Amino acid sequence: MKGLAKDLAHLVGPEGFSTDPEDLLVYRHDAIAYFAQGEPAAVVLPKDTVHAAKVMAYASQNGIPLTPRGAGSGLSGGCTPVRGGIVLDTKRMKGILEINRGNLTARVEAGVVLAAFQQAVEAQGFFYPPDPQSKSVCTLGGNVATRAGGPRAVKYGTTVNYVLGLEAVLPDGEVIRTGSSCVKHSAGYDLTHLLTGSEGTLALITQATVRLLPKPPATCTALAVCPTMEMAARIVSETIAGGVVPSMLELLTTASLAVFNRFVTPPLPEEGEACLLMEFDGTAQEALRQAQEMAGACRDMGAIDVRVVPQADEAAVYWMVRSRLYPLVVSRFKRVVTEDVTVPRDRIPEFAAKVMGIAQEMGLSMGLTGHAGDGNMHPTIRMDEVTDALQARADQAMARVIKAGLALGGVISGEHGVGLHKAEFLELELGREQIALMRRIKKAFDPKGIMNPGKIWPPELAS
Amino acid sequence: MKGLAKDLAHLVGPEGFSTDPEDLLVYRHDAIAYFAQGEPAAVVLPKDTVHAAKVMAYASQNGIPLTPRGAGSGLSGGCTPVRGGIVLDTKRMKGILEINRGNLTARVEAGVVLAAFQQAVEAQGFFYPPDPQSKSVCTLGGNVATRAGGPRAVKYGTTVNYVLGLEAVLPDGEVIRTGSSCVKHSAGYDLTHLLTGSEGTLALITQATVRLLPKPPATCTALAVCPTMEMAARIVSETIAGGVVPSMLELLTTASLAVFNRFVTPPLPEEGEACLLMEFDGTAQEALRQAQEMAGACRDMGAIDVRVVPQADEAAVYWMVRSRLYPLVVSRFKRVVTEDVTVPRDRIPEFAAKVMGIAQEMGLSMGLTGHAGDGNMHPTIRMDEVTDALQARADQAMARVIKAGLALGGVISGEHGVGLHKAEFLELELGREQIALMRRIKKAFDPKGIMNPGKIWPPELAS
Repeated sequence: MKGLAKDLAHLVGPEGFSTDPEDLLVYRHDAIAYFAQGEPAAVVLPKDTVHAAKVMAYASQNGIPLTPRGAGSGLSGGCTPVRGGIVLDTKRMKGILEINRGNLTARVEAGVVLAAFQQAVEAQGFFYPPDPQSKSVCTLGGNVATRAGGPRAVKYGTTVNYVLGLEAVLPDGEVIRTGSSCVKHSAGYDLTHLLTGSEGTLALITQATVRLLPKPPATCTALAVCPTMEMAARIVSETIAGGVVPSMLELLTTASLAVFNRFVTPPLPEEGEACLLMEFDGTAQEALRQAQEMAGACRDMGAIDVRVVPQADEAAVYWMVRSRLYPLVVSRFKRVVTEDVTVPRDRIPEFAAKVMGIAQEMGLSMGLTGHAGDGNMHPTIRMDEVTDALQARADQAMARVIKAGLALGGVISGEHGVGLHKAEFLELELGREQIALMRRIKKAFDPKGIMNPGKIWPPELAS
Repeated sequence: MKGLAKDLAHLVGPEGFSTDPEDLLVYRHDAIAYFAQGEPAAVVLPKDTVHAAKVMAYASQNGIPLTPRGAGSGLSGGCTPVRGGIVLDTKRMKGILEINRGNLTARVEAGVVLAAFQQAVEAQGFFYPPDPQSKSVCTLGGNVATRAGGPRAVKYGTTVNYVLGLEAVLPDGEVIRTGSSCVKHSAGYDLTHLLTGSEGTLALITQATVRLLPKPPATCTALAVCPTMEMAARIVSETIAGGVVPSMLELLTTASLAVFNRFVTPPLPEEGEACLLMEFDGTAQEALRQAQEMAGACRDMGAIDVRVVPQADEAAVYWMVRSRLYPLVVSRFKRVVTEDVTVPRDRIPEFAAKVMGIAQEMGLSMGLTGHAGDGNMHPTIRMDEVTDALQARADQAMARVIKAGLALGGVISGEHGVGLHKAEFLELELGREQIALMRRIKKAFDPKGIMNPGKIWPPELAS
């Protein structure tokens, strides 16, 4: 261990790493403490790509596992150092290197916090849509590594749709620059998107070039309380097919209505089974027109309370409540297990019915909220106590939820990634042949298998 | 050769292939006849994935080169069978398998012609934006294989932004299904995008699941004649940064104005050095507002003729002329050499100046049109006669154009792909390390090197 500290001091200077056990404690897990497995021998905080490359070349030469880490706000155990070794924390690499007005692109270091970046581009009249709910802490590098999404995906897509190019360090310390800052690019294999969502298993992402949009001048919020979940899901799919595409479209359950009623007047009818919270954007006139069109459709289809909220300050209250629902749930229960199965938008009604059926059959308290506009649902098991038996039942229920999603043409993860949490389900989605191919690709990047070992692959394959 | 014919008859039936020399003639090249190199031993027209998989497994066992082909409308020699073997023509696989209204997705076979697909989705009120100019013949599978773009990329992106999932046959005959029909997806490596733009060197794409949009209800066209190319380029970059994003934005040169004047009244002032042809979409009101805003900006910045054309039939004339400019140029010259270097949008003025300088210095007739909104320019050398000396000079000029584009942060190809045509320039863009990595990925898919051999890689590496 002393040898490692000495070597790291030589490579990145004493302020560039730590082997202090107290410092290392926090690096044992991401936002879900019970995924903690293994402990790093050291954490390195490279100040730039050169530092990162030096440390990676050193690790490669010495066969030391490397686990890249952004803010550690993930929910699938993706950045836990299960084989020990070095955690590479990008937090010191937080430069916004360029915001190019004429080209509508920006270039940032991996450790830039998403919210800080969004503020910087908005101050110049631009817009970077991806918006995972952890945006106040999560990093752009982490967003790219996990293919992060968020509520705006319904209209704007996810991180995938904005990354144009990357700088990345290969495990042997070589630096590559993939893609470009051009929207059109058709030369060679698309390594930019291959690295996007690779969860630190192929290379360390050190910089990203992303596409910006002009900021829509206005937004308008709308809300509809529906007597049944099925009706809410049908409204989503029918109205979007009809051409009304909200910039955000969240499906919330009954329990949320009581929370809204602490903040908004007039109160919402709490007998509804589901609630749709939507935002439209464009010019003020255009945003209002879309919201009214959606409100009309919701009324026609039988919603019991529909409101359009054009005033920004009033709308902000609704979205503030939305953003606090998950933290509120987490604070009120001993343990909360969240899934992010995604199904094609038209299968949401069936999926919702399946999930509710599973919860009832297994006697579990389960909530179902989600980014319904893009089919990304977050079934959430809420546990008042944590026992092995209850956890086993929760695991069993979630396995059934995941299989139900797959049977409807869905995927095991919409935006959280595989990490540790979903590894056992990967084969159900991809099949053996595709996993074997992906592992050959992994080998093309990382022949020694030092990058984020123990992740993604089904447990029997994890090296 | 008789053995091959007998084997293929056994695998796909007598109607599923040809070894007739007359049939094979057309498979020697794509849309650019002078890229012809090599001749296939057979062309196979699989009727479905099962057929394709059988033939590929057979080719793999016997070490026979395989060259996938869509409509053969490419411009870089990508589908020429330079090592002989079997050409896989997907034209019989032209089913539109599903248009899913509720999920806004469609699933198609690889051989579906783009225009036919666009008509089918538009008949249902939807919209599939990618629009390479060869859309009346090119196939969806070919679009995916080459990461095809087109004028709408400025607002809507390219094929990359619409492919959600693929069915593909690996060289050994195994079938994989990548991605999904969900907009959000974060499990495993993004093989969908890795195959997109891989130009048939990794696998045969047999089906694609793509994202649809609701069809914008209206469009409005605008046109601005600018005294200088530099001004036109500046208008593009400034107005888009300011929030006015056209659905198409084409930059045309003086020569085009004369062609327009055969069809439109009042005539355009032919003394302009460049012309911007733009389309805006949305509601009728919204499209008109954007066109007027852009027209105002063009006037303010010094355009000498600006017109807004809200009537669809009148606008169609402008776009008809635009679509005929390239075929017109091709028909009027003995040989036309077209590049598709792409530069960041804000570098177009510098790039245009460089290109014009190179043309002048080398005494060549060069046109410069392009999808300026996304930086994708098409410098075109027009040759009245074809001599080895002139062709050598044209090659030299284009090499300088490509290097000028790269020096401005551009890429060697925006939408045509590498094929044969750009292979010698790939290393300039990607560097040795990245090419070595891509070749390891190639090996992970195609260990025997039978997929489209002789393409993409720098000549000294091409197997």
